[in-house]
Amino acid sequence: MLKVGLLGAGRIGQVHAVNISGNLRSDLVAVSDVNMPAAEDLAAKFGAQATSSEAIIADPSINAVLVATSTDTHSDLIEAATAAGKAVLCEKPVDLSLERAKACLAAANASGQPVMIGFNRRFDPNFAALKASSLKGEIGKSELLSLTSFDPAPPPVSYIKVSGGLFRDMMIHDFDMANFLMGERPVTIRAVGSSVVDPEIGEAGDVDTAVVTMTYKDGRIAVIKNSRRAVYGYDQRVELLGSDGLLQAQNMLENTVVKSTVAGVSSAKPTYFFLERYMPAYALEWEAFVAAALDRTEMPVTLEDGIAALAMAEAATTSAKTGEAVTVAY
Amino acid sequence: MLKVGLLGAGRIGQVHAVNISGNLRSDLVAVSDVNMPAAEDLAAKFGAQATSSEAIIADPSINAVLVATSTDTHSDLIEAATAAGKAVLCEKPVDLSLERAKACLAAANASGQPVMIGFNRRFDPNFAALKASSLKGEIGKSELLSLTSFDPAPPPVSYIKVSGGLFRDMMIHDFDMANFLMGERPVTIRAVGSSVVDPEIGEAGDVDTAVVTMTYKDGRIAVIKNSRRAVYGYDQRVELLGSDGLLQAQNMLENTVVKSTVAGVSSAKPTYFFLERYMPAYALEWEAFVAAALDRTEMPVTLEDGIAALAMAEAATTSAKTGEAVTVAY
Amino acid sequence: MLKVGLLGAGRIGQVHAVNISGNLRSDLVAVSDVNMPAAEDLAAKFGAQATSSEAIIADPSINAVLVATSTDTHSDLIEAATAAGKAVLCEKPVDLSLERAKACLAAANASGQPVMIGFNRRFDPNFAALKASSLKGEIGKSELLSLTSFDPAPPPVSYIKVSGGLFRDMMIHDFDMANFLMGERPVTIRAVGSSVVDPEIGEAGDVDTAVVTMTYKDGRIAVIKNSRRAVYGYDQRVELLGSDGLLQAQNMLENTVVKSTVAGVSSAKPTYFFLERYMPAYALEWEAFVAAALDRTEMPVTLEDGIAALAMAEAATTSAKTGEAVTVAY
Amino acid sequence: MLKVGLLGAGRIGQVHAVNISGNLRSDLVAVSDVNMPAAEDLAAKFGAQATSSEAIIADPSINAVLVATSTDTHSDLIEAATAAGKAVLCEKPVDLSLERAKACLAAANASGQPVMIGFNRRFDPNFAALKASSLKGEIGKSELLSLTSFDPAPPPVSYIKVSGGLFRDMMIHDFDMANFLMGERPVTIRAVGSSVVDPEIGEAGDVDTAVVTMTYKDGRIAVIKNSRRAVYGYDQRVELLGSDGLLQAQNMLENTVVKSTVAGVSSAKPTYFFLERYMPAYALEWEAFVAAALDRTEMPVTLEDGIAALAMAEAATTSAKTGEAVTVAY
Repeated sequence: MLKVGLLGAGRIGQVHAVNISGNLRSDLVAVSDVNMPAAEDLAAKFGAQATSSEAIIADPSINAVLVATSTDTHSDLIEAATAAGKAVLCEKPVDLSLERAKACLAAANASGQPVMIGFNRRFDPNFAALKASSLKGEIGKSELLSLTSFDPAPPPVSYIKVSGGLFRDMMIHDFDMANFLMGERPVTIRAVGSSVVDPEIGEAGDVDTAVVTMTYKDGRIAVIKNSRRAVYGYDQRVELLGSDGLLQAQNMLENTVVKSTVAGVSSAKPTYFFLERYMPAYALEWEAFVAAALDRTEMPVTLEDGIAALAMAEAATTSAKTGEAVTVAY
Repeated sequence: MLKVGLLGAGRIGQVHAVNISGNLRSDLVAVSDVNMPAAEDLAAKFGAQATSSEAIIADPSINAVLVATSTDTHSDLIEAATAAGKAVLCEKPVDLSLERAKACLAAANASGQPVMIGFNRRFDPNFAALKASSLKGEIGKSELLSLTSFDPAPPPVSYIKVSGGLFRDMMIHDFDMANFLMGERPVTIRAVGSSVVDPEIGEAGDVDTAVVTMTYKDGRIAVIKNSRRAVYGYDQRVELLGSDGLLQAQNMLENTVVKSTVAGVSSAKPTYFFLERYMPAYALEWEAFVAAALDRTEMPVTLEDGIAALAMAEAATTSAKTGEAVTVAY
Repeated sequence: MLKVGLLGAGRIGQVHAVNISGNLRSDLVAVSDVNMPAAEDLAAKFGAQATSSEAIIADPSINAVLVATSTDTHSDLIEAATAAGKAVLCEKPVDLSLERAKACLAAANASGQPVMIGFNRRFDPNFAALKASSLKGEIGKSELLSLTSFDPAPPPVSYIKVSGGLFRDMMIHDFDMANFLMGERPVTIRAVGSSVVDPEIGEAGDVDTAVVTMTYKDGRIAVIKNSRRAVYGYDQRVELLGSDGLLQAQNMLENTVVKSTVAGVSSAKPTYFFLERYMPAYALEWEAFVAAALDRTEMPVTLEDGIAALAMAEAATTSAKTGEAVTVAY
Repeated sequence: MLKVGLLGAGRIGQVHAVNISGNLRSDLVAVSDVNMPAAEDLAAKFGAQATSSEAIIADPSINAVLVATSTDTHSDLIEAATAAGKAVLCEKPVDLSLERAKACLAAANASGQPVMIGFNRRFDPNFAALKASSLKGEIGKSELLSLTSFDPAPPPVSYIKVSGGLFRDMMIHDFDMANFLMGERPVTIRAVGSSVVDPEIGEAGDVDTAVVTMTYKDGRIAVIKNSRRAVYGYDQRVELLGSDGLLQAQNMLENTVVKSTVAGVSSAKPTYFFLERYMPAYALEWEAFVAAALDRTEMPVTLEDGIAALAMAEAATTSAKTGEAVTVAY
């Protein structure tokens, strides 16, 4: 049984709490948050203790820590928790600074403790089924990957300003998805972006609409499209063209009802946002972490994976600014 | 080259004229209609001669006649044309009277001339593909057939009154489709119907909504649903459940555009009515008739097929009236 | 907080146990089963007590009982539990005997305790969304309802023999769904059935494929299609034609992946069986029961609803045997 | 009535011949081809005369010329035909040399005769419906366009060598489609390409897989994906994201049959190649040309449009070679 301390009782921490306590092999024993009443509420709901992150990390009866705090604390908490002998599942991104993330990796490696980065989309049943089909060779050799990833609405500009920018904050999921599906990391990245959705986002130095093209050493190509606004809901699709066919993972819809009237044929919208769409993925992610932590097998998403995605985000950020192709420095 | 006389220059006659003259093995040489100016207009458009039905039938240079006149003239024209040595393609139904249709069959058989009944839906590429898949055994042994057949809007009550009723006028297509897809004729028919769409149709002695259940001697079952009104367009679907799977032929849509907005996801409606939906089927039907007439092979839809569908319509009409199951008298 | 005793620790009892203990307003305190070790296993998993049904019913600290035992015990347990002052959620069907079910209703009514029948499909988000759309008048006045309900594979013939037959065992869900969607009960029922899937089922006196047509006093019509075998999975669809359009609830698919190769375009199958398809429905059903029991509001599915469906099943069974239309005696 | 001379009796010339002679306002009077027997065969089929291109251009009774010859002859024929007072519909591309195409434009302008370039896809009912929806503002302001355009199989390497390269030969259609749908021309183009499908194509100096990103002066972005090989058929899709929603034009399928078996749910493939997919578009294109030529209204696709697409192809070719962003010189 994995005794788990949850660092962070915000929206995503609450999702994790349900999964930690719903899993037969894990037990939620402690919760911390900078906002203590939030920690207390969440802890009470699941029969856990509300305490500080330091106390959780110092508690030798706790085997694992889930880091769901703000990004700027991730590296420090990973280092402290691994140093204290705990397995760690940390939300993405590892850090906004690639350098800091690499230092964190060195420290975590030195500790010998396993760290998993929460790229939850790898556990989405649709993307996982697509990957499985590709691995079985059902479309032959993969050649051209397309990722579409649109949020329903942009976050507040205040958030944008501290987010690290669209490539580090939002597209980082797609960078990891590309690595997951292509089984290899790209060599060169070209990015274009603009603030066509909201000029204030541009004034804050960020983009809200972006297209990134990535090339691989064997000639394969991947393209990622991001927009901060798709008013019809969370649009999360994948297409992989191979020598023997095409694989597509389409959106999940709110329900299967189709209505035909004089106005046309209409169906339900995609599930609204990441909590609705990726709820099953979060549960499967946690299950995979518990299995790896307890059975001492390799983590399905590593700290190195997190750093690779971060390096790609950095290259894309540079390319979007300079207008030039950038060779990724992993 | 098949020299063709077209009897009837109405809406369906015009469709046939295009196909007759577009086919490389047939030539439209004469057109007749009770409304002479209509015949003249149509004839002029295709370089044919406008004349009387009698003159067309009497003309020894004409090899084939397409009967697209009103239903009450079908039997007489089939008899006259076959007696004059012509191949005949006649629109459905053969006749509103089963007895008269059987007499017509006897006469046509005596003439030795081939007669095809215009059950155009057999030539719809979607239904034909479904049938081909079934014949190849792709869903094993067929067990349960469902036909959905809804018109976009009811015809005028004046038409309803002379139509022979929904079962003879509208569902007759579905009776033939069932025979086509099941490869066998049902033993017993149960029908329920009501005038839930328009009470005036009920007052005229007819129904506008009906469900017919048919049972076969080997235990298979078929069900047909008809409505005179589907405001979203012509709804023409088939489902065939077999021991190894299900085949469905879905509607043709006006275009492939999908629009996603806050209001939902919407797509185009089914093609509006039979002329839009079955335009390719009419051309393929004519091609099949020309091939059979010129190559002296068996007609793909026979006068016997027309009579079988009529017998089924008669049984359904009786069942809907009496509330009892009716064994079909073919 | 609702203190709940679960009677029956079989497959469906296990599903209910998860929902009872996952709901914030209910607590699973005791489990019984004729197979005591099964009760003990399930009780242990959820921190409940394993005991006898009698002890559960006698325990004054228990407010509600969920009956998930074999059908022949349902009426007795409903009577005993309501007499003991408990709210009851009982799996369908109430009983195989309509007379016995009606006696049970009288007893339950006398007790003043609320009883809900577990027609879980009413809580399926797809069917519920279809019903909501219909209630909002989005397709005008409903006219023609079609229910398709195919199981993936027939149960063993030994089960068939004690099941009460397809109409009571399987189609009873569809009878209730028709009542739910039409908002009214049919007057007359016509059924045809055969054992085209497996002749042994016929030899056991039952059918495995059936079509039922139902007519309503206002002229509306409903048709239900059942098959014990759809090799591609659990096929659960609804179509409702109205004066202003059509509503369809389509199948849930295992995932959204589409594969295009030279062989064609393929997608995932429907979710395999009722546990997969209706898992969310079971949770929502339980939530609705808890709310009604604690808040003392009307049960969303009543014992009367269970008896109406049973009366329809009885009528259909008779019609399939006699070949005649049957007026339902509610 | 437009008297038409058809230059070129190859595959695409044959498609045009059907449309010219099927249109009520145009008449096919003469056909030429470097392969005289091909011209004779085609002419005979449609009651036209087989002759030389020079004779057609010199014939004062001919009002319009359709140029369906090899690309290297386009500019010369446009110049000669317009100088001879004829309206011209010329297949794409205008020329492989942008300079030569511009000279052709000057000459055509000097003649005062109208010239249309055969970007047939603008007339595809699906893309046209998408454009109409966008123009009506149904998705608000457009922001991000994606074009997917895959051929079923690469052409022979011998063809590749004289084709002008993927960007001029294949993607030129997509450049025009982007201009059509965005209503504006892009400022900057970035292209990546590789020969991941067939290394021999790379050895011939071309690419077979390419992604192009285009930016507009108002911040909008467009991305085009091309592959010479999609084994499942001709894949032609458009997606346009706007401030109020998303428009997608999906593929046309061979038929609407869906088959569900233990292996999954399968449907028909996209129509095989451009002749199947764009047959209706060719007819509508011709209709639009005839209307503009006879009614002396503006051509729906101009020689300037052809030159713009060519300039974009040239920019993309340069970008793919240098790895740098290229500002398009129109």
